[in-house]
Amino acid sequence: MDTPMNSTPEELARRVGEVMFAADTASRSTMGMQLLACEPGRAVMQMVVQPLHLNGHKICHGGFIFTLADSTFAFACNSYNKNAVAAGCSIEFLRPAHEGDVLTCTGVEQTLSGRHGIYDMCVRNQHNDVVAMFRGKSAQIAGTVIP
Amino acid sequence: MDTPMNSTPEELARRVGEVMFAADTASRSTMGMQLLACEPGRAVMQMVVQPLHLNGHKICHGGFIFTLADSTFAFACNSYNKNAVAAGCSIEFLRPAHEGDVLTCTGVEQTLSGRHGIYDMCVRNQHNDVVAMFRGKSAQIAGTVIP
Amino acid sequence: MDTPMNSTPEELARRVGEVMFAADTASRSTMGMQLLACEPGRAVMQMVVQPLHLNGHKICHGGFIFTLADSTFAFACNSYNKNAVAAGCSIEFLRPAHEGDVLTCTGVEQTLSGRHGIYDMCVRNQHNDVVAMFRGKSAQIAGTVIP
Amino acid sequence: MDTPMNSTPEELARRVGEVMFAADTASRSTMGMQLLACEPGRAVMQMVVQPLHLNGHKICHGGFIFTLADSTFAFACNSYNKNAVAAGCSIEFLRPAHEGDVLTCTGVEQTLSGRHGIYDMCVRNQHNDVVAMFRGKSAQIAGTVIP
Repeated sequence: MDTPMNSTPEELARRVGEVMFAADTASRSTMGMQLLACEPGRAVMQMVVQPLHLNGHKICHGGFIFTLADSTFAFACNSYNKNAVAAGCSIEFLRPAHEGDVLTCTGVEQTLSGRHGIYDMCVRNQHNDVVAMFRGKSAQIAGTVIP
Repeated sequence: MDTPMNSTPEELARRVGEVMFAADTASRSTMGMQLLACEPGRAVMQMVVQPLHLNGHKICHGGFIFTLADSTFAFACNSYNKNAVAAGCSIEFLRPAHEGDVLTCTGVEQTLSGRHGIYDMCVRNQHNDVVAMFRGKSAQIAGTVIP
Repeated sequence: MDTPMNSTPEELARRVGEVMFAADTASRSTMGMQLLACEPGRAVMQMVVQPLHLNGHKICHGGFIFTLADSTFAFACNSYNKNAVAAGCSIEFLRPAHEGDVLTCTGVEQTLSGRHGIYDMCVRNQHNDVVAMFRGKSAQIAGTVIP
Repeated sequence: MDTPMNSTPEELARRVGEVMFAADTASRSTMGMQLLACEPGRAVMQMVVQPLHLNGHKICHGGFIFTLADSTFAFACNSYNKNAVAAGCSIEFLRPAHEGDVLTCTGVEQTLSGRHGIYDMCVRNQHNDVVAMFRGKSAQIAGTVIP
């Protein structure tokens, strides 16, 4: 079995992603997200808009678009196997998402200095149109994701 | 039957809330929220943290706390029966929420000038501790919620 | 001479404000602000819009409205004589400010839990119209403002 | 004399920048900024931290770092010679700036869809360290910067 001890950063990030995702009921079961990639300082997640995601206007609830971006943020900023938490975030909604739309969120580290990082998440639909942009500030805390 | 025509602002807001909530699958069915009040420029919603809300740290996914606040924002800023949309929002997370916690979100209009408003949502747990603070900027668009 | 040792919280806050303001070239000399009040968890500052504040549209530069709110935030969150720094902030601009307008910013603590606080600043003009709303998150660090 | 009529987008952006900057007392005279580039959807500005910029901690007032980024945002989002205004912005401060530091802010359009755009500004010091990251949302309004 692979252990983090002798892993490359890429292997470690992938394994951190697998362990986190398996335990994440909210993202996996409730929202129906998939984790497409977890790399050092970067993650990609996907979610198909289903009837359960629709609000009273019959579009995807903005909170669930936020949730997709927030999950992607968590995977990207924990990818070094050092526990990190969100210390603030903001989102801009650019266009609505409808039932059947395939939303792909890519999260990329912009800067990491000491314990603090800035990550940008961009949510696009199947036409590559930008649906939302999310910026998160992370703070590393004590502990690791996997032993 | 009551019609908006002869309603007070309080009655109109309550009725707008009922109609919006009935149609809002995401908030009502998927997240399990309750709408406790919808008044002119103000709304109160509640959500009990259940296993479906938990992330990999076994705390409520921050995205779902955002979703609770975002829904409350929608009810508060549509309460005049003029369609309004979110034009940006930010959230600060103050403390985690655990399974069984009862989260109550109160949303209050701070200013409404022309078509643009600012609303502050505050999410508290059953001990009255602040869990998150959310600020939303709304823009009224054409149309009404109920005819 | 008064020492913080035997001061009430109100006296201590006032004195912290005086010492900080005297040393704050940017707010006092460059921008021309006045400190009207510094109380525990609260501060009030004022700035008259002068030609030096005007941008190419001949209205007050939004950055200087931000600066007025950011200074007020600093006085409010340092008022306990425990060093505090801004850990993130957001601003919404509601209406422009013109030459001669008297801008008054009131900053009030919304929550303080452990080392982290949320403060809301509201900038109004001489007609009591809201010009901007600013929200800041503070973190207390080691040290005191005055010995 | 060059007229916008027969200009390339690059020439038009440069000329819009010159006209806006000449009229911008706040950025040019009060803050001492320089406009290094104004291109379609992009701008670069610079400011040397001087004694007039220092707050009570003897570091550059965060409001003036915001002001540098906000000005850069204005040049970038007006560079098509269509009037645009800020519709919200957020900033994250990463490290302090001291007297003598040379701050360079680069602003780049991330997305422009219809009348709404998102622009990211990054402020770096002379060591290329990130001092602050600013995100702005713009809305185009009626009119042009130059006739």
